[in-house]
Amino acid sequence: MEKNAPFPLDPSRRNFLGKSALAGLAGAGLSLGLTGCQDATSTTAQAGTATGNAAAAATHGKFEVAPGQLDDYYIISSGGHSGDMRIYGCPSGRTFKEIPVFNVDCMVGWGITNESKAILGTKPDGNLRYKTGDTHHVHGSYTDGTYDGKYFWVNDKLNNRVARIRGDTFEVDKITDLPNVQGHHGMFPDKRDPVKADINHTTRVFAGSEFHIPLPNNGKGIDDKAGHGCLFSCLDAESMEVRWQCRVDGNMDLVATSYDGKLAASNQYNTENGVLYEEMMSAERDACVFFNVARIEEAVAAGKFTTIGTSKVPVVDGRAAANADPKTALTCYVPVPKNPHGVNISPDGKYFVCSGKLSPTCSVIATQLVEDWFDGKVKTPRDCVVGEPELGLGPLHTGFDGKGNAFTTLFLDSQIVKWNVDAAIAQFKGDKAIKVVLDRLDVHYQPGHGYASMGETKEADGKFFNSGNKFSKDRFLPVGPLHVETEQLIDISGDKMALLHDHTAYPEPHDAIIVRRDRIKTRQVYDMAEFPNAVTDPKSQKVERKGNKVTVYLASQAPAFSMREFRVKKGDEVTIILTNHDKVEDLTHGFAIENYDVCFIVNPGETKSVTFKADKAGIFWCYCPHFCHALHLEMRSRMIVE
Amino acid sequence: MEKNAPFPLDPSRRNFLGKSALAGLAGAGLSLGLTGCQDATSTTAQAGTATGNAAAAATHGKFEVAPGQLDDYYIISSGGHSGDMRIYGCPSGRTFKEIPVFNVDCMVGWGITNESKAILGTKPDGNLRYKTGDTHHVHGSYTDGTYDGKYFWVNDKLNNRVARIRGDTFEVDKITDLPNVQGHHGMFPDKRDPVKADINHTTRVFAGSEFHIPLPNNGKGIDDKAGHGCLFSCLDAESMEVRWQCRVDGNMDLVATSYDGKLAASNQYNTENGVLYEEMMSAERDACVFFNVARIEEAVAAGKFTTIGTSKVPVVDGRAAANADPKTALTCYVPVPKNPHGVNISPDGKYFVCSGKLSPTCSVIATQLVEDWFDGKVKTPRDCVVGEPELGLGPLHTGFDGKGNAFTTLFLDSQIVKWNVDAAIAQFKGDKAIKVVLDRLDVHYQPGHGYASMGETKEADGKFFNSGNKFSKDRFLPVGPLHVETEQLIDISGDKMALLHDHTAYPEPHDAIIVRRDRIKTRQVYDMAEFPNAVTDPKSQKVERKGNKVTVYLASQAPAFSMREFRVKKGDEVTIILTNHDKVEDLTHGFAIENYDVCFIVNPGETKSVTFKADKAGIFWCYCPHFCHALHLEMRSRMIVE
Repeated sequence: MEKNAPFPLDPSRRNFLGKSALAGLAGAGLSLGLTGCQDATSTTAQAGTATGNAAAAATHGKFEVAPGQLDDYYIISSGGHSGDMRIYGCPSGRTFKEIPVFNVDCMVGWGITNESKAILGTKPDGNLRYKTGDTHHVHGSYTDGTYDGKYFWVNDKLNNRVARIRGDTFEVDKITDLPNVQGHHGMFPDKRDPVKADINHTTRVFAGSEFHIPLPNNGKGIDDKAGHGCLFSCLDAESMEVRWQCRVDGNMDLVATSYDGKLAASNQYNTENGVLYEEMMSAERDACVFFNVARIEEAVAAGKFTTIGTSKVPVVDGRAAANADPKTALTCYVPVPKNPHGVNISPDGKYFVCSGKLSPTCSVIATQLVEDWFDGKVKTPRDCVVGEPELGLGPLHTGFDGKGNAFTTLFLDSQIVKWNVDAAIAQFKGDKAIKVVLDRLDVHYQPGHGYASMGETKEADGKFFNSGNKFSKDRFLPVGPLHVETEQLIDISGDKMALLHDHTAYPEPHDAIIVRRDRIKTRQVYDMAEFPNAVTDPKSQKVERKGNKVTVYLASQAPAFSMREFRVKKGDEVTIILTNHDKVEDLTHGFAIENYDVCFIVNPGETKSVTFKADKAGIFWCYCPHFCHALHLEMRSRMIVE
Repeated sequence: MEKNAPFPLDPSRRNFLGKSALAGLAGAGLSLGLTGCQDATSTTAQAGTATGNAAAAATHGKFEVAPGQLDDYYIISSGGHSGDMRIYGCPSGRTFKEIPVFNVDCMVGWGITNESKAILGTKPDGNLRYKTGDTHHVHGSYTDGTYDGKYFWVNDKLNNRVARIRGDTFEVDKITDLPNVQGHHGMFPDKRDPVKADINHTTRVFAGSEFHIPLPNNGKGIDDKAGHGCLFSCLDAESMEVRWQCRVDGNMDLVATSYDGKLAASNQYNTENGVLYEEMMSAERDACVFFNVARIEEAVAAGKFTTIGTSKVPVVDGRAAANADPKTALTCYVPVPKNPHGVNISPDGKYFVCSGKLSPTCSVIATQLVEDWFDGKVKTPRDCVVGEPELGLGPLHTGFDGKGNAFTTLFLDSQIVKWNVDAAIAQFKGDKAIKVVLDRLDVHYQPGHGYASMGETKEADGKFFNSGNKFSKDRFLPVGPLHVETEQLIDISGDKMALLHDHTAYPEPHDAIIVRRDRIKTRQVYDMAEFPNAVTDPKSQKVERKGNKVTVYLASQAPAFSMREFRVKKGDEVTIILTNHDKVEDLTHGFAIENYDVCFIVNPGETKSVTFKADKAGIFWCYCPHFCHALHLEMRSRMIVE
């Protein structure tokens, strides 16, 4: 392998990038308070040793997944403004699935079949309500503090929805709109019931929102800032209905939940409620807000709520001013340095770590102290902060190894920093000698989310950490102005981190979880009986007409469709129902109609349907677009429009 | 790496699969003439040695692309009924880009921006004409018999279009509809001009079509089989207009072109012109049809053409009955065994290889003999066949190493077979002792296309062969009923083939080309002047109203949009034009409007626009969905709809 030959690179390009990013900040003509951070970094940088590619190259080979071997983990990832969710293998980095969620996908037929349109929602004219989405966070359902593989959820920041994905098929089964919110960013399921001690699995999903809007947002009160607000939502994990919403101060990014089910948390920037970014950065401190789930649900049960606009969802008031008394408070705002970004909980459940973003620190918040604050046992919310180590420039997200260490992404420094939580707490108490930062590793470049294998469960195993980098620049062959994203897998099993490889990801994944493969139980063939509209007779020859509505009942079995042709009339509304009678694993068929913009697949045992207007006369070949058989090309039918 | 532990596998699973596939054939209750093939295989199988994973595992490591290293080749691939085109790295197998072509992609904004809608085409109501596509073949423009990196083309089998992708940006710049065809399957550019000797680069693109339809297809003549036909099309490489079409017998799959520019070829199944698949397989022989490009263009120039329906494209008659005299013939039908699949030309330009599919053979057709036939020097078209080696079950496609060897995918046998072209010719002449098949390698499973590095150019280098397999089954962790596709990279530099690795591909790539990286010259930043609607003033604050049509002129420069808010009225038709003023490589911004289903990106220097109706009153936050800066989350604007 020739090493980068035609693309000579400046070995100090990381430094250049850092400077360039800072120049961007400076170019805005603003003092961002980052000068202090730079000083802080030059201090903390001495605590660890940057590990370059040279060291990593020696170790990367040992985790290669050879032909015929399987990966050990699933990485289940968001797709950003691709609107989808993805599944990668770990450690190989191979993409196993791109699951269409909020986007349109003609391979699957998502947004094309009647079944997917019913989940996505349509306008009165039958067109999709939305064909865009922006997914940021994927999380799975829990039992006993670890993944049970039943459900996964992903958010839509753009059109404010939550989608649920079944763990057995990895397909979307429900999408819920969040009323009266914009910028639905963070999302996390609970890990057990906050009240019922015998329910030790996920029952609720929490959803933050980032942008303040008039409540309700109907064109009135546009200039009335006091009437603007931001809501934290709670969905029922099974019904996917919104149970309640809680109005807060500030913009919410990420969400995390405690292992005892009692607390949900969200980091907040813009507690100033500014509109311009200078305003959003004016206060020295923002917050990490904690929600007392049981108390909120008591308030709702007691009727202490309002509703907003046409929504029937109960809304409680969680703003600071209304929650000054800890003993009745629904929320607790723990002050942290300005514009924090992520919030993550340690696998032992003891600490929430809130990353500084514009501060070089992470704030360590003790779960028990927050719960004690709600019981009136802690003087001020700030007293819940038990550590605040200086880590470097632009800390965003933190993963854990289950051995007491944390791994934080540094966006501006383009590094992963490994630090010890107990040491950070000791340092905060006054131990100036203790070594908090244990190691640093350069990544390429500008990492956003980072996450460890099983790191968001009590089974965190300290094997791998994935750095989701926001810029790839020179890491891959150039393919035009838009570069692919780079995901870097890091071995965190030893004292020193070691870079294993760079893998690519279609822009732009945000967050992901790394799930041990035994936690996932999929099935490969559908049961035909699951589909109420299944065409159960493989010899079906039925074309049913009611007025100008025609239903065509079709079955597929390699290498043929059950009808070689079917006739309809120009102007008919045609519904085609197709059941795949093949039962062999992987024997998926497709159905496409020439020049009629119809394309979808049916997996073994599955039924799908499409409805369209036969607006062109003539012969239109229908064919199987998904390779199925030696006679795949011959697997055809004809729609004759008279 | 634990080896497949939770998923115990039958080591003989390949045999099972082969049987299962055959059972499918048998299940159709048809005699497919494959019994003979099975015998043939058991003979030829002895000629080579199957190389299993054990042997491969020893060699795969040497081609790993370590962190910080770049790949040596681009694999530029179709995406099947995903409707897109992809770029992978070789040998790493990493996906560098998914280029939306015929599909809708909310990451890029393809199908959402005005610019992409103009390329894709819209209905009178402004909605996209098509949102589906089925891409099968990607090929690049040639200069002097090798890739020049200027253009790439990809076909749409579903809605019958050809798209052109610029090699400098890897974005689609033109899409052309093919009139009066269905099942537009194969496609290949010419390699030099057939007439003008000084033009030694691509000037035409040829497009086959598979499905016979009434000509014209307007609802009349549905039962008149003689009026059905299939057209071979020729597009101008620069203007992308259709120059001419040629009516043929039979269904056309793949297309190949000679290095001297004189011939285009297409393999044909269903010369019976059947509708049922039994009919399509009734004849013992089908054909590989050759087009005499110069003669067709002379005929067009001489006015010897018709037009069909509303299309103005000249159509010449290339059917066998009208071309019996070689000296005036436009086409030459070379008989080959029934239902062949692929056709590929050897890098020395001497031989077209047409794969048997339902016959265990490949037919080797001498280019010079076909040209001689057109000159009346060869007795029958069948005399152009100079070799017909038996290779195994289900030969589909052939790649070349530039050293005289061919590599053919065997769909039913799940193997790649390496054979020597000269040996096959000697055997056909009567040498019974000569060894034609040199090696066999099991692949997993059911390969479709296979292609070698630079193998479709005169610079074929014999380094890598990629097997695009149609079933992956147990090769990756299970992700539900739909399995990912598997692409297997094979080292073909030695006497024996060696499997390097399995890589995944979103369903379902068909064909690809492997292009040496120095052949591709991309640019990373746009020139703002390329965009006539560019918002050149980065401090733009302009909102322009004409009646109820409002144009918003916006610029982006990290971390801000040029306007913090803009006001429109409910019912307005709003056009937003956004120019990205950032000039740093990879500094792409996005623009998304909450609950307004707007999402697209602007690369450095690029301008894009969207038009929509402001049908909801209120405040709608606009934000940058593509991570750009430490203050990315704060990069926002507000659309206020009064």
